[in-house]
Amino acid sequence: MKKASTARRGRHASAWKSVVLSREQQFSLKRAALLREAGRAFSLRGYHNTSLEDVAKTLDVTKAALYYYVKNKQEILFECHMLSLDFGDEAMKYCEENGKTGLEKILLLVDKYVRTITSEMGSFAVLGEYYALEPHNKAIVGKRRDKFDRAFRKLIAEGMSDGTVRAVDPKLTVFFFMGSINWMTRWFTPEGSASGEEIARQLVDLVKGALRAR
Amino acid sequence: MKKASTARRGRHASAWKSVVLSREQQFSLKRAALLREAGRAFSLRGYHNTSLEDVAKTLDVTKAALYYYVKNKQEILFECHMLSLDFGDEAMKYCEENGKTGLEKILLLVDKYVRTITSEMGSFAVLGEYYALEPHNKAIVGKRRDKFDRAFRKLIAEGMSDGTVRAVDPKLTVFFFMGSINWMTRWFTPEGSASGEEIARQLVDLVKGALRAR
Repeated sequence: MKKASTARRGRHASAWKSVVLSREQQFSLKRAALLREAGRAFSLRGYHNTSLEDVAKTLDVTKAALYYYVKNKQEILFECHMLSLDFGDEAMKYCEENGKTGLEKILLLVDKYVRTITSEMGSFAVLGEYYALEPHNKAIVGKRRDKFDRAFRKLIAEGMSDGTVRAVDPKLTVFFFMGSINWMTRWFTPEGSASGEEIARQLVDLVKGALRAR
Repeated sequence: MKKASTARRGRHASAWKSVVLSREQQFSLKRAALLREAGRAFSLRGYHNTSLEDVAKTLDVTKAALYYYVKNKQEILFECHMLSLDFGDEAMKYCEENGKTGLEKILLLVDKYVRTITSEMGSFAVLGEYYALEPHNKAIVGKRRDKFDRAFRKLIAEGMSDGTVRAVDPKLTVFFFMGSINWMTRWFTPEGSASGEEIARQLVDLVKGALRAR
């Protein structure tokens, strides 16, 4: 058993070696992995009850090593929020490039975003800690969220004008759908009974039923 | 203007006097009103950034007067959560007594709950501060939420067996719908462009589209 696992690790290590990464790329990849794990550490006991020392302990690194990547725990919280917003922007770009009608784009957006956030972030309860963001960080996150919401509303309007989406209130509808997705921070865990793919499939099915013109 | 407002206040006062309330009833009514207002005070700057002194200042009462009703700010947060759960239980009872089919009950539940929470709690951003609940309080709130979710799932199962609801995953569906509702803590204000009634109507319409058998 031990031999096989060493061999596997060896293979991974050489696969890594075959890709030449710049110092900056390495830093940025390691930092992203650290942020995900640190975000998970906050999820266990909540942001306010978790110190940077607890995070270091959970990640099994020294506090000094942690300081190499982030300057304090607020930065971890903020960067986890920014990461989820990056996933949102990617999903938006993807659906706009691949969907034909308004409805198709909306379903692709929901599918892509839910799959990405569940697979890339794992447990992301930390995103529920919006109130723990310091005012200037909250403002940045809030502004990006608003921008995403506005782009989502435009897709609904597009669907209503191309006849694929029935008459709904785009603003309220986006609030409701984003609520369904954001609320996942409270109940989703990678160890839970439903996979990210199943969750995405069920939500897409409900959104389709809720929106499509008949 | 001043005279009219005094007269109005006078009328209310006499209406109050005509109802004989026990000391306990008075205490409980005043406490509920205080909780709602105190919850609103937290919404402005977040639970962790608001002291009991800030709450007293917002309510324009002395800290001593506040202590007559609550023993600390955690109690306010906890009781606001319990109040919203009471509204949920009331809505559940209402829909079970008044709905005939599974789908009807679900739509009545969503309608009643959204109307009640928007009108009775006003701004309820404080409910988003789940992570600020102390462990024992979080356990109590979590347990009641689970119970509510299970009752909601049973309504979906009922609709699937009476043929009014199409085949969906009851557990995920409840998570999604409750997410839409609970996320309102982030964006609803009584001063916003949509009234509680409009919001309830739009959500009921989407839920109906998402669930009804065709």
